[in-house]
Amino acid sequence: MTNSVKKSPAGSRNKGRRVMNSKNVRGKHINKAKGAKRSGTTFNNYRNSGIDKPAIKIAFLGGLNEIGKNITLFECEGDMFLLDCGMAFPDGDMLGVDLVLPDFTYVKENVDKIKGIVITHGHEDHIGALPYLLKDCNIPVYATPLSRGLIENKLKEHNLLSSAKINEVKAGDEIKLGCMKIELIHVNHSIPDSVGVAIHSPAGTLVHTGDFKIDFTPATGRMIDLTRFAELGKKGVLALMADSTNAERPGYTKTEAKVQESFENLFIRAKNKRIIIATFASNVNRIQQIINCASANDRKVAFSGRSMLNYVQVATNLGYIDVPENVIVDIDMINEYTPEQIVLVTTGSQGEPMSALSRMAYSEHRKVAVGSGDFIIISANPIPGNEKTVGNVIDELLKRGCEVVYESMYEVHVSGHACQEELKIIHSLVKPEFFIPVHGEQKHLKKHAELAVSLGMSRDNIFMGDVGSVVELKKGEMKELEKVASGKIFVDGLGVGDVGSIVLRDRKHLGQDGLIIIVASLDISDGYILSGPDVVSRGFVYVRESEELIYEVRRISLEILQGFAMKNIHEWNLIKNKIKEEVSRHIFNKTRRSPMILPIIMEV
Amino acid sequence: MTNSVKKSPAGSRNKGRRVMNSKNVRGKHINKAKGAKRSGTTFNNYRNSGIDKPAIKIAFLGGLNEIGKNITLFECEGDMFLLDCGMAFPDGDMLGVDLVLPDFTYVKENVDKIKGIVITHGHEDHIGALPYLLKDCNIPVYATPLSRGLIENKLKEHNLLSSAKINEVKAGDEIKLGCMKIELIHVNHSIPDSVGVAIHSPAGTLVHTGDFKIDFTPATGRMIDLTRFAELGKKGVLALMADSTNAERPGYTKTEAKVQESFENLFIRAKNKRIIIATFASNVNRIQQIINCASANDRKVAFSGRSMLNYVQVATNLGYIDVPENVIVDIDMINEYTPEQIVLVTTGSQGEPMSALSRMAYSEHRKVAVGSGDFIIISANPIPGNEKTVGNVIDELLKRGCEVVYESMYEVHVSGHACQEELKIIHSLVKPEFFIPVHGEQKHLKKHAELAVSLGMSRDNIFMGDVGSVVELKKGEMKELEKVASGKIFVDGLGVGDVGSIVLRDRKHLGQDGLIIIVASLDISDGYILSGPDVVSRGFVYVRESEELIYEVRRISLEILQGFAMKNIHEWNLIKNKIKEEVSRHIFNKTRRSPMILPIIMEV
Repeated sequence: MTNSVKKSPAGSRNKGRRVMNSKNVRGKHINKAKGAKRSGTTFNNYRNSGIDKPAIKIAFLGGLNEIGKNITLFECEGDMFLLDCGMAFPDGDMLGVDLVLPDFTYVKENVDKIKGIVITHGHEDHIGALPYLLKDCNIPVYATPLSRGLIENKLKEHNLLSSAKINEVKAGDEIKLGCMKIELIHVNHSIPDSVGVAIHSPAGTLVHTGDFKIDFTPATGRMIDLTRFAELGKKGVLALMADSTNAERPGYTKTEAKVQESFENLFIRAKNKRIIIATFASNVNRIQQIINCASANDRKVAFSGRSMLNYVQVATNLGYIDVPENVIVDIDMINEYTPEQIVLVTTGSQGEPMSALSRMAYSEHRKVAVGSGDFIIISANPIPGNEKTVGNVIDELLKRGCEVVYESMYEVHVSGHACQEELKIIHSLVKPEFFIPVHGEQKHLKKHAELAVSLGMSRDNIFMGDVGSVVELKKGEMKELEKVASGKIFVDGLGVGDVGSIVLRDRKHLGQDGLIIIVASLDISDGYILSGPDVVSRGFVYVRESEELIYEVRRISLEILQGFAMKNIHEWNLIKNKIKEEVSRHIFNKTRRSPMILPIIMEV
Repeated sequence: MTNSVKKSPAGSRNKGRRVMNSKNVRGKHINKAKGAKRSGTTFNNYRNSGIDKPAIKIAFLGGLNEIGKNITLFECEGDMFLLDCGMAFPDGDMLGVDLVLPDFTYVKENVDKIKGIVITHGHEDHIGALPYLLKDCNIPVYATPLSRGLIENKLKEHNLLSSAKINEVKAGDEIKLGCMKIELIHVNHSIPDSVGVAIHSPAGTLVHTGDFKIDFTPATGRMIDLTRFAELGKKGVLALMADSTNAERPGYTKTEAKVQESFENLFIRAKNKRIIIATFASNVNRIQQIINCASANDRKVAFSGRSMLNYVQVATNLGYIDVPENVIVDIDMINEYTPEQIVLVTTGSQGEPMSALSRMAYSEHRKVAVGSGDFIIISANPIPGNEKTVGNVIDELLKRGCEVVYESMYEVHVSGHACQEELKIIHSLVKPEFFIPVHGEQKHLKKHAELAVSLGMSRDNIFMGDVGSVVELKKGEMKELEKVASGKIFVDGLGVGDVGSIVLRDRKHLGQDGLIIIVASLDISDGYILSGPDVVSRGFVYVRESEELIYEVRRISLEILQGFAMKNIHEWNLIKNKIKEEVSRHIFNKTRRSPMILPIIMEV
C-alpha cells in the first residue's frame, strides 16, 4: 500500500510540512497568458516549454453546472484519487426520484489506480453517494472525525461498515496517495470539521477550497486557516478550485456570532411561549448555539425529526456538541414541562412535506400540536426551488396562531458559503496560475470567473467546465481533454439506475394528463371480440361526470376492432395504434387534453 | 335598470361628488373598540347602539390566504355587486391544471341581486375568471379603458363578446349599483388604468385599494390620487380593505423612473449587441419605457410571445403605448438588421417552459437563435415558486454565451405593490374604523394586520378572513357571519370542474410511481383463465431491465386467479383486491416503491 497519513502535530500547524514543486512559480502567474494564442481547446501559454513536464489531470464527475453531486477525480503519473463523493437532490421534473448519484463508470474503469477518497466535509452533497460506490469499489476513505462519524452511520444503514476502510484524518494532516500528497486545510462552513485541500503533485500544487466561508468569530472552533492559504500562495499554486455557491452575492457572509445574538434576543421576545426552531440537522454549530441559549434561559431542549436525532447523536458522541447536564429531554417528555421551559429543535426548515415541522404545521405530528403558545424560528433560508413549500408551511403555522420568525431581517441564519469579498481574499492569497470555478450552476461559475478576471486573471487561464469535463494542467499550460462518461443516475426506492428518461417521460405524462386503458379480448382465430372493449381511466376526469366521453371512447374502439376483424386483419400492433390515434384525436377535440392511451388486446 | 354611471368631469377631480354617510364618524374611529368584549365571532363595540342601523356584508370568494383569484361580493339592503373576477395559477401539486377559478355557486344563487361587476385593473388575477362567469350570468361589467380592451379580447376568445355588457368607466367616475355608489380612485400599479374604489353605501363608506403602490414619478400617467384617499378619510371611512402582497417588505417600492435610468445605462453597456428584454406582457408602462429607450438609441423593437403581441396590440390601439414612427418591426424582419439595431421584447420572465425566452434558451425558438451576440435583460423578479425555472433559463442562456442581467442590483424591475411605508400612508390617510387585509397569503395578511396595529388600530377592529368568509359591518360593529360556498374550480383544457381531488390524487400517484396493469380474461362460467394474466407497466421501471420483477408479478397474479377459480369464487372485486394487495406488497418489498396497481378482469 502506497498510502500513508502524515499527522500534523497538535499546536504546530505549519511545522514539518513538505511542499513539493514550489520553486519555479512564485509571484508571476497572474496574467502571463495574456495574448497567448488559443488553438482549439488547447490553452498553451508556453509554446516553447518542454513537452515532458509532469501534468495533472482533473476529471469533474459532478458539481459543475449543478448544485450538489460533488465528486472530482485527480490523476498524476498513473495515480488517482477522488475528492468527495456526493449526491444531489432531484429537480422537480425528476418525478418519484429520491436522490441523484454521479455516474461511476469512469471511476470503476480506473478503480485500480484510485488510491483513496478524500472527504472535505460531512454534507450529503459530498458524502451521500459513498455507499453506492463503496459497495462495488472498496476504496479507502479519508475523512475528518465528524465526517467519519456521519459516513459510518450511513454505511451502517447499507451494511457496508465492516468492510469499508475509513481512515480518520484531521486538518493539517497530509495524506500520501501514490505520487500525490493531499494536505487538509481547516475552513469555516456550516458543519464542523470542514477542510479544503492542497494537492501537492509532481505537476505542482493545486488548491481546492471545498465548501467554505471566512468566519472570524465562528460559533465553535477556530477561523479558517488563512495563513496556510497565504503560505501556499507564496510558494506557488498551479491552480485554484473554489466554491462558487455564493459568487453572485456581494459583500461578506455574516458571522455565526450574529446568529447567537439574534437567538438571545428572540429567546427574550418569546417570553412564556414554547420555542420551536427549525434548522438544518447537519448544522451542528447552530444546534450548539441553541443549546447554549436554552441552557442560559432555563429551558430544556428536545429534538424532533429522524435526521436531527441522527446528527445530534453522532455529533454528541464525538464531542462536537457539548451539552450541559439535564438540558436534553426526550420529545415524549415535553408535555411534562410548561411551554416556557421548552425549546424544540426540528427538521423541516425547507418545508419538506414529510418533515417534522411540516407535520406540525398540518396537524399531523403525533407528539407535537402547535398553536398560539408557540414561538417558531426558521433558522435557514429556502434553497432555490423550496420557497413555495416553505411559504406554505409558514402560512399553516400562522393560521394555527403560532408566532413565526422567518425573515432575513431577524438574522437567525447565515449562509455556509463565501460571498464575493471572501472569494477575493482567497484568490488574492492563493494567487494561482489557473482558476477553475467549481460547486455551482452556470450563473455562479460565470460570476466567479468574472470575479477572478476583476482581480487581474486572464480569461485564458480560467477553465469553465461541465460535468464530465477533463482538464490537464502543467506549469504554464492548460488543456481540455476529451470528456469522460458522466451523468445522473437516479435512485428510486431500492432501485439504482432503473429509472431513466423513458420512465420519467411516462411519469410526467401520466402525472399531467392521466391515462385511459382500453382492453378487449379477441378470438385468436378470427379476431372477433369476445369481451370488451372495456375502458378504464385514472387521473383523467371524474368518470361519473364524463360518462358520455367514456362511452364515445368505447364506441370508437369497438368500431375499429370490428372493422379490422371484418377485414380479417389480425396485426395487434396495427390495431392498437389505430385505437390510440383515433381515441387521442377524439379526446383532444372534446377536452383539449392528451391523456396516455393504452390499448390492450387479450388473445383468447 | 337601477345602474348608472356618474362621469367625472375632466380636470375637476373632486368637484360634484356626493359622499354618503359621512357625518357621524369623523376622526374618532381608531382604538375605540379597545376593551370591548368579544363573544363568539361577534365583535360588538357599541352594545347600546340601535339594532336597525344599516349594514353592509362582504363575502370574500377569493384572494384571502392565496395569491390571485380576487373576487369579492358586497351586499347592502338587498343589492349586490362584485369587485373583480380573477383566476389563479395552479400550484405545483395541481398536476395538469391550467388555471384555477373561484367557485361561483354563491354568485349564481344571488345573480338576481347582483347589479354589476366592477373591475379594478386588467391583470389575470382580477379579470381572468370573467368569461367563465359571464357565460352563465350575464352581469354588466364596469371597467376602465385598458381593462375593458383586455376583457373584450378575452371574451372574444370565448365567443362572449357580442352578448356581454361592458361599460367603460374611468377614475373619478361613480357607478350607481342599487343603493351603493362605487367611486373609482386612480392608483399606481404595474398596469395602467388601475383603480381602487370607495363604496358609498347606506352603512357607510368602504375603501378598497385594489392592487396598488405609490409612485410619485410613474413611467406614464399621474401619481395615485392620494388627495381623494385623504378626503374620504376625513369624511369618515367605515372599513379599509388594502393590498397585502408586499406587507412583508419594509420601506418603499422604488419608482418606475429608476427602471428607466437602469435601461438607459444598460443600453449603453450592451454596445453593439442585440438586446433582448423579458418582462411581463401586461406591464404596458415598462414596454413603453423600452420603446422610448430603443428609439433614443436608434434601435428597432420587435415583440415575441403570443401574450406580448396581444397586450401590445390592445394597449397600442387604445393609446396606452405611444410608438414613434418606424420603430416597431416584425420579428421575421430582425435578421435584416445588425444586432445593435435591435431590441427584442419577449415573454418568459418567469421561466415558463413554453414561453418565448425559454424556447430561445433551449434553442427551440423558430425565429431567434441566441448566442454571444446577445445582451439579455430579465426585467422581472421570479414569483415565489418560479425561482428554480427562472434560474435554469438563465443558466442555459449563459451556456450559450449570452450576457444576462438579472440581479436585483441592476434595478431593471420594480414591484407593482406597496411596501410597508406606502401601506402606512394609506392607512393613515383613510383612518378607517375597521380594517380587513386582503390580497395575500396568511403571512402577508398577518403582517399587514400587525402594521395596522402598529399605527394604533385595535386588534378587535381587524378582520382576518379566509376564502368563503362573510363579514357584516355597521358603524361601530363588525360581525363574522356563516361562511358561504367557495373554493377552487380547476380548468384543464376545455374541462371546467371535471378535475377534482380524486383525479389529482391519482395524477400525483401515477406521476410519482407509475403504474402496473394486470389483465386477464376469465371464463364467465367457471372463472378459469382463458388468457393472461398479462402485465403492462408505464412509468415504473425500465421493463427490459426488470424482467424478473414483471415475471414475479405475473406469477403472483396467476396463482391468485387459479386459487379463486379452484375455490369456485367468482367475485371479481374480491379477486382484484387480492391481486392488488399481494402485488403491491411484493413490489414494495423488492423495490421500496408503490406504483398504482390496476387489475382488470375481462369476462368471456
